[in-house]
Amino acid sequence: MDTINSIGYPIYFNDSLAELAAFIERGNYSKFFVLTDEHTGKFCLPVLQKYLGEDAKYDLIEISSGEENKTIDFCVGIWKMLIDFGADRNSLLVNLGGGVISDMGGFAASTYKRGIDFVHVPTTLLSQVDASVGGKTGVDLDSIKNIIGTFAQPKAVFMEHSFISTLPPRQILSGLAEMLKHGLIADAEYWNELKMSDLKSPSAGLVYQSVNIKNDVVIEDPKEKGIRKALNFGHTIGHAVETYSLEHDENPLTHGEAIAIGMICESWLSHKRTGLSIEELNEIVEVFSGLYPRYTIEASCHGELYSLMQKDKKNHGSKINCSLISSIGRHAIDNICTEAELCSSLQYYSSLA
Amino acid sequence: MDTINSIGYPIYFNDSLAELAAFIERGNYSKFFVLTDEHTGKFCLPVLQKYLGEDAKYDLIEISSGEENKTIDFCVGIWKMLIDFGADRNSLLVNLGGGVISDMGGFAASTYKRGIDFVHVPTTLLSQVDASVGGKTGVDLDSIKNIIGTFAQPKAVFMEHSFISTLPPRQILSGLAEMLKHGLIADAEYWNELKMSDLKSPSAGLVYQSVNIKNDVVIEDPKEKGIRKALNFGHTIGHAVETYSLEHDENPLTHGEAIAIGMICESWLSHKRTGLSIEELNEIVEVFSGLYPRYTIEASCHGELYSLMQKDKKNHGSKINCSLISSIGRHAIDNICTEAELCSSLQYYSSLA
Ligand SMILES: NC(=O)c1ccc[n+]([C@@H]2O[C@H](COP(=O)([O-])OP(=O)(O)OC[C@H]3O[C@@H](n4cnc5c(N)ncnc54)[C@H](O)[C@@H]3O)[C@@H](O)[C@H]2O)c1
Ligand SMILES: NC(=O)c1ccc[n+]([C@@H]2O[C@H](COP(=O)([O-])OP(=O)(O)OC[C@H]3O[C@@H](n4cnc5c(N)ncnc54)[C@H](O)[C@@H]3O)[C@@H](O)[C@H]2O)c1
Ligand SMILES: [Zn+2]
Ligand SMILES: [Zn+2]
Repeated sequence: MDTINSIGYPIYFNDSLAELAAFIERGNYSKFFVLTDEHTGKFCLPVLQKYLGEDAKYDLIEISSGEENKTIDFCVGIWKMLIDFGADRNSLLVNLGGGVISDMGGFAASTYKRGIDFVHVPTTLLSQVDASVGGKTGVDLDSIKNIIGTFAQPKAVFMEHSFISTLPPRQILSGLAEMLKHGLIADAEYWNELKMSDLKSPSAGLVYQSVNIKNDVVIEDPKEKGIRKALNFGHTIGHAVETYSLEHDENPLTHGEAIAIGMICESWLSHKRTGLSIEELNEIVEVFSGLYPRYTIEASCHGELYSLMQKDKKNHGSKINCSLISSIGRHAIDNICTEAELCSSLQYYSSLA
Repeated sequence: MDTINSIGYPIYFNDSLAELAAFIERGNYSKFFVLTDEHTGKFCLPVLQKYLGEDAKYDLIEISSGEENKTIDFCVGIWKMLIDFGADRNSLLVNLGGGVISDMGGFAASTYKRGIDFVHVPTTLLSQVDASVGGKTGVDLDSIKNIIGTFAQPKAVFMEHSFISTLPPRQILSGLAEMLKHGLIADAEYWNELKMSDLKSPSAGLVYQSVNIKNDVVIEDPKEKGIRKALNFGHTIGHAVETYSLEHDENPLTHGEAIAIGMICESWLSHKRTGLSIEELNEIVEVFSGLYPRYTIEASCHGELYSLMQKDKKNHGSKINCSLISSIGRHAIDNICTEAELCSSLQYYSSLA
């Protein structure tokens, strides 16, 4: 698998941890820091350590795992540790973890002393195919996802497929939702290939294809002025459902589970608004329903979900802008949807057997 | 006075508030917000309001004045108000105030939803000749100045010289220190002109020249990799003294008062290290001593001041990097100074009559 060129930086796939060790060596950094959570500290850091060498000198910053910790408060904690450890402008932050680590670590690094170098070593399927590519960083505030953040590119991304082997099945499914999305918005053939694959453990080749699709989109539109919005398919409703679940459920939905729901709803909207055929709608629903558990959304919650959608970053004023598809493999951005349409799509989801 | 072109944006001097009104009109923003503190809310907002028209619709965000409020906590307050007021990606933030307002407002805007437009209307002499030019934003954390921030350019800057008329004399002197610095590092003629002027109320023409000098430097080196460091003359020691004073004094030094002390110390270092003549050193000391009150720095505080210098953003590792001058009008960057040298320079300051 060739190294992919992203927005001014490489994404390594072959021998990626050896590449990381070489990158750090070459970089001549005054210090480096590794950001982990307790899971990646346990499963991934020992592997990384082997490549860095047992006597590698770095400071470890470990945070508690979970989206509920991707907040400005935790970010302040990271900044304070960087200060205490004496991080200077010539320091490097290595984000070893899932999307929570890369989003928050990327934000912390891009604002510490007005920006220090950082790299991502994504350890979840979701962060490999999505969060680590494209230069969006962010933290949540008042339960609004990624409301505070920057566009900031890492110096490199190191994809280590073997890290995925310790992921719980739910986390695999979470990343898979984004891979399916990549097929739906940009590549019907890839969608068909995915459907036929062993989706319990997606191959390195499939991961590579997903990264390629996402990367092509973000290179064309780094700041999300146009085409990049296509990647938000499923996310207008999905983000609202995710936030709702985080606030109300003891065992909240993963990002992928939430956007799988969002993609079902927004496929229905695509059928109503942008010409997605009923056959393709049914096919999409069948694939997602076969993979993801059903989630109960009472009609009484539609109001709360709608007001969460209104707070979404991507909207202009109070209008809700959805990225839909016109057929499998073809995106259709910039559809202003009404409250009635959005609630009907939630009803459609709830009506499925 | 011609409009100055900065890093991709204009700095208006003539009829600047009318220009601002026209800018907002043209910009077709979904909403706009004005950030003030209680002083600029009282002295400057009514003037602005006249140009915007009495029925201009905007939301006001007013914070308490003072460097002690330029913190991440206050910034969270601004973000929350933007959320509550429904600021979307197509919103504009107008920073109406001194450097505290432009630094914190610029940071808040550049990270809200990964960046919304902002403009500066600097209302202090210091913010006109310095803080509003160059695209540095920042807030303090744990009393470390500007440790968190971004490089982010405003869409425009509007210089209204008349705002300066309500400034207390100490605030005039604070900005004047930066103007004198511009002469010292880049333009001996300007330094001489300043010396001869009525420094109680610097003319619009002098302000314009200072902006021009600073702008030329930042255009050449926006990210402070080289020549821009020249602007830090007086600031290695000055920032430490400023932070020290903020922590210990009931009526702390202004930024300019602190860097005036820093410039005396660093002129002495320049004499020792980079060839500044004794005559020019004495001339510099005389000018600053004539303008700024003496500040007592006990030898017992040198340790604390030195450790504050070590936390300075501009250092690599534990080495302290000073921007000095080789003569009046000529900068000399990248001088690693020892603790002994830095403390001697503080002693020199204290030894002055
Ligand atoms: N920046 C972007 O473009 C972008 C795109 C998509 C998602 N995101 C963000 O990513 C986040 C979700 O990412 P995520 O699902 O990776 O979340 P995550 O970082 O919370 O990881 C999920 C769980 O897996 C654990 N884990 C990570 N690696 C592991 C491994 N190798 N073995 C065992 N356990 C492991 C984590 O500790 C965590 O408990 C969200 O905050 C979302 O907003 C960002
Ligand atoms: N970003 C940069 O490049 C840069 C450069 C230099 C300084 N700074 C920052 O700027 C800050 C200092 O700037 P400052 O001195 O303008 O501080 P400031 O904003 O605190 O203003 C000083 C005082 O003057 C008051 N004031 C403002 N305008 C007034 C007016 N027209 N009439 C009467 N009172 C008025 C303010 O309310 C405040 O009390 C520091 O935080 C410093 O770090 C930033
Ligand atoms: Zn997603
Ligand atoms: Zn200054």
